Amino acid sequence: MPNIEKPFMKPSIPKGTRDFLPHQISKRKHIFKIIEETFTTFGYLPIETPTLENLSTLLGKYGDEGDKLIFKVLNNGDFLSDSNAQDLMEKNSQKILSSISKRGLRYDLTVPFARFVVMHQNEISFPFKRYQIQTVWRADRPQRGRYQEFYQCDADVVGSSSLMYEAELVQIYASVFHKLNLKTKIYINNRKILFGIAELAQLTENFVEMTVSIDKLDKIGIENVRLEMLEKGLPESSVDKVLECLKCKNIADLEAIFEEGSVGAHGVREVLDVMEYLDNGVPNLEFDITLARGLNYYTGCIFEVKVDEDAYPGFKMGSIGGGGRYDDLTGVFGLKNVSGVGVSFGAERIYDVMDELNLFPTDIQKDIDILFIALDENSHKKAFSEVTKLRNTGIAADIYPEPTKLKKQMSYANARNVPYVAIIGESECERNVVSLKDMVSGAQDEVSMEDLVNKISIGS
Amino acid sequence: MPNIEKPFMKPSIPKGTRDFLPHQISKRKHIFKIIEETFTTFGYLPIETPTLENLSTLLGKYGDEGDKLIFKVLNNGDFLSDSNAQDLMEKNSQKILSSISKRGLRYDLTVPFARFVVMHQNEISFPFKRYQIQTVWRADRPQRGRYQEFYQCDADVVGSSSLMYEAELVQIYASVFHKLNLKTKIYINNRKILFGIAELAQLTENFVEMTVSIDKLDKIGIENVRLEMLEKGLPESSVDKVLECLKCKNIADLEAIFEEGSVGAHGVREVLDVMEYLDNGVPNLEFDITLARGLNYYTGCIFEVKVDEDAYPGFKMGSIGGGGRYDDLTGVFGLKNVSGVGVSFGAERIYDVMDELNLFPTDIQKDIDILFIALDENSHKKAFSEVTKLRNTGIAADIYPEPTKLKKQMSYANARNVPYVAIIGESECERNVVSLKDMVSGAQDEVSMEDLVNKISIGS
Repeated sequence: MPNIEKPFMKPSIPKGTRDFLPHQISKRKHIFKIIEETFTTFGYLPIETPTLENLSTLLGKYGDEGDKLIFKVLNNGDFLSDSNAQDLMEKNSQKILSSISKRGLRYDLTVPFARFVVMHQNEISFPFKRYQIQTVWRADRPQRGRYQEFYQCDADVVGSSSLMYEAELVQIYASVFHKLNLKTKIYINNRKILFGIAELAQLTENFVEMTVSIDKLDKIGIENVRLEMLEKGLPESSVDKVLECLKCKNIADLEAIFEEGSVGAHGVREVLDVMEYLDNGVPNLEFDITLARGLNYYTGCIFEVKVDEDAYPGFKMGSIGGGGRYDDLTGVFGLKNVSGVGVSFGAERIYDVMDELNLFPTDIQKDIDILFIALDENSHKKAFSEVTKLRNTGIAADIYPEPTKLKKQMSYANARNVPYVAIIGESECERNVVSLKDMVSGAQDEVSMEDLVNKISIGS
Repeated sequence: MPNIEKPFMKPSIPKGTRDFLPHQISKRKHIFKIIEETFTTFGYLPIETPTLENLSTLLGKYGDEGDKLIFKVLNNGDFLSDSNAQDLMEKNSQKILSSISKRGLRYDLTVPFARFVVMHQNEISFPFKRYQIQTVWRADRPQRGRYQEFYQCDADVVGSSSLMYEAELVQIYASVFHKLNLKTKIYINNRKILFGIAELAQLTENFVEMTVSIDKLDKIGIENVRLEMLEKGLPESSVDKVLECLKCKNIADLEAIFEEGSVGAHGVREVLDVMEYLDNGVPNLEFDITLARGLNYYTGCIFEVKVDEDAYPGFKMGSIGGGGRYDDLTGVFGLKNVSGVGVSFGAERIYDVMDELNLFPTDIQKDIDILFIALDENSHKKAFSEVTKLRNTGIAADIYPEPTKLKKQMSYANARNVPYVAIIGESECERNVVSLKDMVSGAQDEVSMEDLVNKISIGS
């Protein structure tokens, strides 16, 4: 048969990307399964959008920095043919871009969702509750724990401004992390409260600068927030007013601060309404006036989830989830006044946290239920047909491919971390039994082929 | 709050890509779930590889045509800076490519798997049985039923030449399509048999031309295969010999044709051994001497699955699965003599077939189990807390966000295709009951909140 000798190449994968081995996939599936089941129980429906989006859909939605981090895909064929000769000569990458690339890789799930809602508005019913678990790509500088390709898990409702959904999304957070056995704190705030503070401090023109600084309070402390705001040129009286507001740890304190009918008072009312829906049912929910969330499209309640550091002393990890209310997500695609609210799970970080805290259940890391080991050719054929019977009942069974040395087969069983090994030789074959070895206890018993299904089903 | 008016743009997605709506996802999940469960039962382990691979990994593996169809990703930043000025001036896309793009999108699952095996050879145990269900991208001209982004579902074993795995993979095909309730025929042949025919016909130097022609027999008929081979300049005596061999419908007939110890005889022996493992356990398996499979890396048994056209008269659809044995997949990445065998499921085609034949079970298309409809503000709050209780038991429950007009809420229930609607107003609230409407039968009963869980769990 023709066998063309090709030059040898040492394989590698691009920086910032990962292969996943089976034991990693099992753990990842555990997280996704719980998130997905919870989304489903809460009435969210799955959608998927393509990896490739038109650059016209993506560009301009994530800020200038975001635009740079979008992976662009080269047009197919003779991609340079329509490029401007002058720009090429000047090696002007910026100007050439639009002539050689018209598609990019999905950068998040929110913009594609907004596009989806507009394109399919006549095929869906509002309020539309969707979840989406897909990978996104960002050309960030790769570093430990940060990848260029990673999963996002989002649930959003569009087409209703009911605060019931804020409450429901808090419940989703609580439910998922409860099932994952990971202790967290869920923080809630409201953009209107922050805007109310800006009004009180006469900083409405500097709302973004103010919130960006407030957002850092957790990391840099109140004194540095003060300094940063002053360095930005905000008046000292304004800065002092902001700091005074930030001292309100309790939502009730804030009610007194804001004038009736003001934006700030509305924000307070919204948070209280969400709390009322929850009826104190979520003990790890906390109001946090310093919570700001970076993205500027949020307009109402905002959320963030962090690992409960009191539960795991000495453990440090940033946010593992976040979200909020946005009043006009689909406007840019031509559909106005569609209010939405959503949350996102940082699946990669949740994985890292659970791995480090050793929180994955051991049973999800099982490979097969039983491995057959045959000692001669006849027994091997017999074993194969027994394996087939077990598989037909849904038991994950396997068999070493040849009746080779017992030691070699046992070491394969060990490598695959098998709970049971069924050994079958001439004598077992004749009597229609196997020697069943429990790989955990080391015990070994003869079990008839008929009893094997029950034995393994109960044990596994 | 700042609200920047952005210019309106009519959104679209690139040609050849698709959005998936919830009802489509449900059907797709049904297929993937059955494939994945079957892979798992047979002891295959999941892996995932990155979307972005180095072009050095991808290029040269799929032929010249394949190289053109690989999506190339632009380098980040000032991508033109290292390009040759002369090549730019000449708009030589071909020469410029390597300086502006070093990564491409996954084109299939086989080459990344080979790379994976070589890179992780010390972390896995051989024989290594892996499955992989991920999307791949090809810059094919988009047309009906052909997309630029689509799923592949592959199961492969590497590191053993045991024919047991061929048998097992046939069982996997049989099991998956049985569970999908789709009647198929599984065809088996062996590349060594085809090479044996080439030997008999003195066409070993023209093996590829010969198999390419044989592969078309199904579509163009034996006379056109003959003409095509003659047009290719193959000697008439050789062509006649090939046609004579092709008339062997039965594997037993072939045993007589090939000399003992010849490659052809080996091929026949392999197919017979696979059959022996299967012990006639797969009734829809057929030997098909004309089966050739396009890809040239196969060296032993080859498989193909087609919809059983006898079971669905008038239905035409190409292959919905295929695979085979390859002797040296990882050699190009520096790991020699690793034999492998695998099968692939054409998930997109399976979807189309099942959709057209109406084979999807109706229960997978259910959205939520129950929708609550409240008639006043008080009842709404009460209903929300009942919904929460149901969700805590795992029932997929939802509630319309406001106590608006009954008609509007009912039309939402209809749009979401809900099996049960629980209506709650002042009177129901007082008595701690709901009016439960069965949306299929139209029957309406009062049910106490306590009984609701049982009622819905049994009904759903």
